[in-house]
Amino acid sequence: MLIRQIGEFALIERIRKKIRTDSSVVEASGDDCAVVKFSRDKFQLLTCDMLIEGVDFTPREKPYPVGRKALAVSLSDIAACGGIPRYALVSLGLPSKTPLESVDELHRGMRDLARRYHVNLVGGDFSRADKLTIDVAVVGEVEKKNLVLRRRAKEGDIIFVSGFLGGSIRGKHLRFTPRLSEARWLVGNFKVNSMIDVSDGLTQDLAHILKASSVGALIYEGLIPLSRQARNLDDALYGGEDFELLFTLSPLEAKRLIHSKEKIFTPIGEIVPRSRGLRLIAKDGREKIIRPGGFRHF
Amino acid sequence: MLIRQIGEFALIERIRKKIRTDSSVVEASGDDCAVVKFSRDKFQLLTCDMLIEGVDFTPREKPYPVGRKALAVSLSDIAACGGIPRYALVSLGLPSKTPLESVDELHRGMRDLARRYHVNLVGGDFSRADKLTIDVAVVGEVEKKNLVLRRRAKEGDIIFVSGFLGGSIRGKHLRFTPRLSEARWLVGNFKVNSMIDVSDGLTQDLAHILKASSVGALIYEGLIPLSRQARNLDDALYGGEDFELLFTLSPLEAKRLIHSKEKIFTPIGEIVPRSRGLRLIAKDGREKIIRPGGFRHF
Repeated sequence: MLIRQIGEFALIERIRKKIRTDSSVVEASGDDCAVVKFSRDKFQLLTCDMLIEGVDFTPREKPYPVGRKALAVSLSDIAACGGIPRYALVSLGLPSKTPLESVDELHRGMRDLARRYHVNLVGGDFSRADKLTIDVAVVGEVEKKNLVLRRRAKEGDIIFVSGFLGGSIRGKHLRFTPRLSEARWLVGNFKVNSMIDVSDGLTQDLAHILKASSVGALIYEGLIPLSRQARNLDDALYGGEDFELLFTLSPLEAKRLIHSKEKIFTPIGEIVPRSRGLRLIAKDGREKIIRPGGFRHF
Repeated sequence: MLIRQIGEFALIERIRKKIRTDSSVVEASGDDCAVVKFSRDKFQLLTCDMLIEGVDFTPREKPYPVGRKALAVSLSDIAACGGIPRYALVSLGLPSKTPLESVDELHRGMRDLARRYHVNLVGGDFSRADKLTIDVAVVGEVEKKNLVLRRRAKEGDIIFVSGFLGGSIRGKHLRFTPRLSEARWLVGNFKVNSMIDVSDGLTQDLAHILKASSVGALIYEGLIPLSRQARNLDDALYGGEDFELLFTLSPLEAKRLIHSKEKIFTPIGEIVPRSRGLRLIAKDGREKIIRPGGFRHF
């Protein structure tokens, strides 16, 4: 059996089941970040993401936005847990005929984003590679009371998304702003029951929340905020790389958010019993069951 | 200009100079680990290493030892700073036609080593790749008093190495034991002035200590402990992947170590003024200047 036959998520699940961790680990792999004990009132967040030329960006892409993106995707994971990024380690696999200027530019993209969010680039590793390969590991922290995971969505919760979805592959994925400030504002002012970043596609990432929380969801076609780059609804439902926040709030908290001045968040649906699965309510009111989908590596 | 024209170490230096970190960073890139503030009596250690098929292991290698090595090289960095590894994040780039069994075996190699040293495998990332690519980031900790860096070797220090050197490429690099216990014993019982792990070759890694400490060194051909796999002295001087500890102690501390029951450490030379550079005293007593060399990615 080959890994492409079992698929990325079954593979993750398979590996996950075999791992044993000690009592200092609050949440091992399976969420956007791993969560470990840190101090009396804080947890530490750990996450890593590997980007490879030809998979996550084309060979024609400029190095500055590629370097920036490599850090941004990990910062987006920290945001999804409600945290603050602190340190980043960068492993760079480079073809030996890479121009020095490209490495300078790639690193400048990373540095500019790191400075903006007060992230310390503390170390890394260089390796020879056939294709440009960048792995960024980020260490962050979050107050215990502000930690948000995927697995506490509750029936009746309202589902929200930040920004606009779809068509990110036509440019936004190389210049998106990780939603760190928005996430910190959310966890500081609301009780967020569950959160994830939309990296693989709305339906697939929502399905992660549903599975982890043992619930179902209804989403309303008419409410989904389509980006200008989205050609159609499917781009928003199944296109990946939006790096927006997807989260759920109790109806009371949802009402507070809707009445706040912050207009970047859009309610798109609600959490329902697990037995109902994931359904889309079309503009004409018809309900259809959605098979979650989006980007998968294998 | 291409990166292979300036070389790996000049590239690292170039990038390093541009990085600004805040006051929580005790030591940014440039040592085996980055060191950041943690608690009143401890620092946190951060390190990452990327291994790529065709560079760090051949395509014919079995996945179990490859997975084990990917974690071991990062644990060796933690050992070189005198610390204890705690958490590991693993990014895996896999060709989609990888057999499931290979991933299982690769992960088993990693898990077995992690269990032995009480390291929690807390998360990771899968990506599609043309060649098997493994990046492991490790978070560790060290008591402030036990932290050892490269840059505090002093004139008169005696230089020691653990185990045997050379010929690692003929097998040992895939089954070495990271010197965590030995390093902890050392820092717990001796004042270690400087330490590094021999990953690129004895002369090259010693040169890192010399440069960071602004000193020179004499090493004695007759004292260098050659492994059975080493074909000649050059294998020990320039061959990489030994993953042994290379460290310096004051003459008094050195005497204590030599008289201890621990026979795994061999004195191989002494630290001298910087102006003398790095010299080898041959068995016939003749001195020659050594140009440090070893494995370089570019």
